[in-house]
Amino acid sequence: MKKLLIILSLFISYSSFAQIPDLERVEPMFWFTKMHNPKLQLLVHGNDIANHEVKINYPGVTLTKVNKVENPNYLFLDLMITASAKAGKFTIEFTVKGKNKLSYVYELKDKSTDKNRIQGVTQKDFIYLLMPDRFSNGDKSNDVIKGLKETNLNRDSMYYRHGGDIQGVINHLDYLKELGVTTVWMTPEIENDMHLASYHGYAVTDHYKIDPRFGTNELYKKYVETAHAEGLKVIKDIVHNHIGSNHWFYNDLPMKSWLNQWPVYTQTSYRDQPVMDPHASSADKKKMLDGWFVPTMPDLNQRNSYVQNYLIQNHIWWIEYAGIDGLRLDTYPYNDAEFMADWEIKLKAEFPHLSIFGETLVSTVASQAFFTGGNTVNRGFDTHLPGITDAVLKDAIYESLNGKTGWTDGINRIYATLAQDFLYKDPTQNCIFLDNHDMSRFYSMVNEDFAKYKMGMTMLLTMRGIPQMYYGTEILMKNYSNPDGLVRSDFMGGWATDSLNKFTDKGRTEKENEAFNFVKTLANYRKKNEALQSGKLMQYIPENDVYVYFRYLPNQPKGTVMVIINNTDDDKRLDTKRFSERTKGITKAKDIFSEKEMGISELEIPKKSAMVLELN
Amino acid sequence: MKKLLIILSLFISYSSFAQIPDLERVEPMFWFTKMHNPKLQLLVHGNDIANHEVKINYPGVTLTKVNKVENPNYLFLDLMITASAKAGKFTIEFTVKGKNKLSYVYELKDKSTDKNRIQGVTQKDFIYLLMPDRFSNGDKSNDVIKGLKETNLNRDSMYYRHGGDIQGVINHLDYLKELGVTTVWMTPEIENDMHLASYHGYAVTDHYKIDPRFGTNELYKKYVETAHAEGLKVIKDIVHNHIGSNHWFYNDLPMKSWLNQWPVYTQTSYRDQPVMDPHASSADKKKMLDGWFVPTMPDLNQRNSYVQNYLIQNHIWWIEYAGIDGLRLDTYPYNDAEFMADWEIKLKAEFPHLSIFGETLVSTVASQAFFTGGNTVNRGFDTHLPGITDAVLKDAIYESLNGKTGWTDGINRIYATLAQDFLYKDPTQNCIFLDNHDMSRFYSMVNEDFAKYKMGMTMLLTMRGIPQMYYGTEILMKNYSNPDGLVRSDFMGGWATDSLNKFTDKGRTEKENEAFNFVKTLANYRKKNEALQSGKLMQYIPENDVYVYFRYLPNQPKGTVMVIINNTDDDKRLDTKRFSERTKGITKAKDIFSEKEMGISELEIPKKSAMVLELN
Repeated sequence: MKKLLIILSLFISYSSFAQIPDLERVEPMFWFTKMHNPKLQLLVHGNDIANHEVKINYPGVTLTKVNKVENPNYLFLDLMITASAKAGKFTIEFTVKGKNKLSYVYELKDKSTDKNRIQGVTQKDFIYLLMPDRFSNGDKSNDVIKGLKETNLNRDSMYYRHGGDIQGVINHLDYLKELGVTTVWMTPEIENDMHLASYHGYAVTDHYKIDPRFGTNELYKKYVETAHAEGLKVIKDIVHNHIGSNHWFYNDLPMKSWLNQWPVYTQTSYRDQPVMDPHASSADKKKMLDGWFVPTMPDLNQRNSYVQNYLIQNHIWWIEYAGIDGLRLDTYPYNDAEFMADWEIKLKAEFPHLSIFGETLVSTVASQAFFTGGNTVNRGFDTHLPGITDAVLKDAIYESLNGKTGWTDGINRIYATLAQDFLYKDPTQNCIFLDNHDMSRFYSMVNEDFAKYKMGMTMLLTMRGIPQMYYGTEILMKNYSNPDGLVRSDFMGGWATDSLNKFTDKGRTEKENEAFNFVKTLANYRKKNEALQSGKLMQYIPENDVYVYFRYLPNQPKGTVMVIINNTDDDKRLDTKRFSERTKGITKAKDIFSEKEMGISELEIPKKSAMVLELN
Repeated sequence: MKKLLIILSLFISYSSFAQIPDLERVEPMFWFTKMHNPKLQLLVHGNDIANHEVKINYPGVTLTKVNKVENPNYLFLDLMITASAKAGKFTIEFTVKGKNKLSYVYELKDKSTDKNRIQGVTQKDFIYLLMPDRFSNGDKSNDVIKGLKETNLNRDSMYYRHGGDIQGVINHLDYLKELGVTTVWMTPEIENDMHLASYHGYAVTDHYKIDPRFGTNELYKKYVETAHAEGLKVIKDIVHNHIGSNHWFYNDLPMKSWLNQWPVYTQTSYRDQPVMDPHASSADKKKMLDGWFVPTMPDLNQRNSYVQNYLIQNHIWWIEYAGIDGLRLDTYPYNDAEFMADWEIKLKAEFPHLSIFGETLVSTVASQAFFTGGNTVNRGFDTHLPGITDAVLKDAIYESLNGKTGWTDGINRIYATLAQDFLYKDPTQNCIFLDNHDMSRFYSMVNEDFAKYKMGMTMLLTMRGIPQMYYGTEILMKNYSNPDGLVRSDFMGGWATDSLNKFTDKGRTEKENEAFNFVKTLANYRKKNEALQSGKLMQYIPENDVYVYFRYLPNQPKGTVMVIINNTDDDKRLDTKRFSERTKGITKAKDIFSEKEMGISELEIPKKSAMVLELN
């Protein structure tokens, strides 16, 4: 049926009255038994489907309500699925006065009881963020898919598709494992059937379909399963706020209020402030929340209960279908807060171990904390969001590497920023990072200063929170987000025709191998050190421009990790008396890079270096 | 007795075993009937006083406990004063085995029922902060007081005394009233019998005595009463954290734990972070709280219950004695948080209308909010402090005047800063300001740019919070805090010998009169506009570099105040459609400076100007 529509749409693609098949689709396409929430709302799309009567006959499944909406091409079927319902198939029948029968075979699958999936991502993990189009091309047969709107394949431009795919990621899970990565986060691999820049993934055109240029739903499921078998976890990147303007439902909306509509095109202000400002105007708040992200990304109306059900079920479907461990929520502040809290509660009710963090590119700890759950600063409203992408900590790390010492500048910035952690219920659930696909690469931002690179990577991998590295940072990939977008360059070696293969030590330069091994050493060390995995943080006021912090387990001094950052031009001698609260009972320290052992009472810290010591 | 001690100490001032009179002092020297708290703890100081028995015989007054401490020269007497106790005098008798009788005539005065005192200071007010030594010399006879340690009088140096006093302030209350000021805040007028820089007031040497160079306790009381009679209010500046090293009790401490003692002199880190940082070490926290401010300012141990009672009673005593309307708490973050919360509760129990704000020279809204009451960000601990000195808003105003526009820079800084008000329970209780005795003067900080001066003063006097201006800003006094401290220069005309008298329009230059009249117009306008006095704030995202905000009363559009800041080099035309939430029902606007009336749909805002419009 879908195929027919595609063929049809090729012929009449400029008409807004495309003929829709009598029963074009039912979503979710299938569902699961024994879910926490017994309710399910099926979206049915078909030509004049609202004029049909609907029947379901299956033990444990009741059709409680048939909802008609503005557009007669839609029905929303409310089902109740009791705990007694068994896995199996049944037919949904659509008739007009007993005739013109249409039917859809609906399946209930057993909810998985496998404990090796939906595990959650925590401080123990190390996330590798990659863009699937730019990492590795594992299947040349899906590079160009006829019928989709973008058929260019041009590796010389940052704006066209390059051919990378899910199979390419599967092929390199061993590389990631060697590096010490534990979790893979891809930018969205969902269908983006857009005319331009379709590689980037945030303009969804079909919520239930992996983009064919990346693979299939089945391949995505296999990717998660393979990762799990290798001891790796998977984060899915999802978008609540908007869709792509070629989304199948955009040209045949169920109802006007499905989207946030404006008399004339109105763009969001991209400003987080009106959402939290007690002095904000309704106009500024509405523009921020309901304004469109860009003209090609229509803004979903999350106050519409059908939209709510659609998104909640879609995300639950993917998690249960593929066994995903965690979610990254795109453009979090642009979403309706009440809906998102409800969404969180419902997702966590189904999957208690699921990890979730929201993208919040804002400028203060207070603003980041505003979006996190726990009722700390949000005037009684609990967002239920466990963590955010900690952009403010990233800025603080940059300031500590590139800035000049001042009361809260230079190295004091990271200290002062972490001190504001009191605003969070639990800052360890924040995703911490140095760069991502939307920003200039870390190595460029420290002016390709290798000493700074090592200090930054050390902080990333020993600090509180869940560290995330952007693909290629381990091999010193560089460049700026503006003006050329080269931060989305291909990982060399990911394509069979590449002249060098950076996935192997032979393909890397000496310096790239030094970087790779530096990250590998730290990442693999943190895998086995419990203080880094789940310990607390204790930080000291920087003195003499040297910043010292500890990761530790209460009442267990052995195994404490001491990190010393000396980003000055002088070698420093550090008297450790001040730190007695953490060094009591400790007799020796081991440098985790050189494996050299030393006494603890006085330490020598070379200029421009980070020292990571395990205390015993 | 006191005199004797002074004479004595002149002879043996280098001995730590100064002979103390048998009964040197009882504090508080008198007390009040019908207080909320029936308990009173008297400090008694006298040579070997602890070896005496104590007797009190007065209806309604019971001596419940006699507390002996480490130093036999002290007794702490716990009294219970029931509601039936009447004003009057009684004798406290001290005997050794019935002999060697010492006595002190203690008085209970009636607690005042006058409603014209202890009124509280709110957004309705406009605070004038002055240094009494530098404002006006109203009584030459007290310029130098023999017996006190600093007897220099040198108006050519910023570090010596200049002779200003309380009588000088009383003499100019009419000037302040004309300017539109409603409240006077003097830096501490309490005795500072220090060898150097005794003018500055924060090194208390006698908690119960106005510095004789400023006047007497009686004159201070008269000053408050005169202010009240003129319709002005009074704020007292008090210090909980430390004393001066010449404090009478410093050389004869009641007990070692009266102060925060260190094996070697240890200075505070001056860092607010360890107090709030969940990752802080105990060592950093202790140093911040218990470290001394400077060597001449010993740090009181606020965990000592005798110290607690001493401070609480002292402050209650001053308020009830003189009828003070509000308190400014020096160095707030350096105090023990639990004690301060208890102090707040006890003070407010006695004086429900009393206003209180704490000095918090910190660098983030989060940190400021941490110290305020209301359980918003302080992880369940309520400080009970209503407001703080809003240094972050000050910085934001400077950035909006001096900075270059960026996402949160330039004019966007003040918008983004106020948006963080969600962190406070009630930001309207913050004291807002542009400068004070510890910082460079506002006019210098805007490079003597009169347009910026007017924009800054406009924001100060129309923004949420309680505005405070530093003396002389109304006549464009200037200079920097470093290196010469000239921000504490004398107000010209405050001394009979001054060549010009800036208290009169004739003594001021044309430009000084323009500034004076600008402040006067705004300050007097805000006295009669209810929206400025108690209205809400609504601010809009700056567009086109123009910042617009409103002060308004809900459901009462008439009288709304619209403020427009255009700190660009271009005249701007402003379409007011965006602001319909606040301009609905409004037909005309009046410029409060020119009194020109205009329509509201489109406004012309000259470059580098602030417009204040009353909407009707």
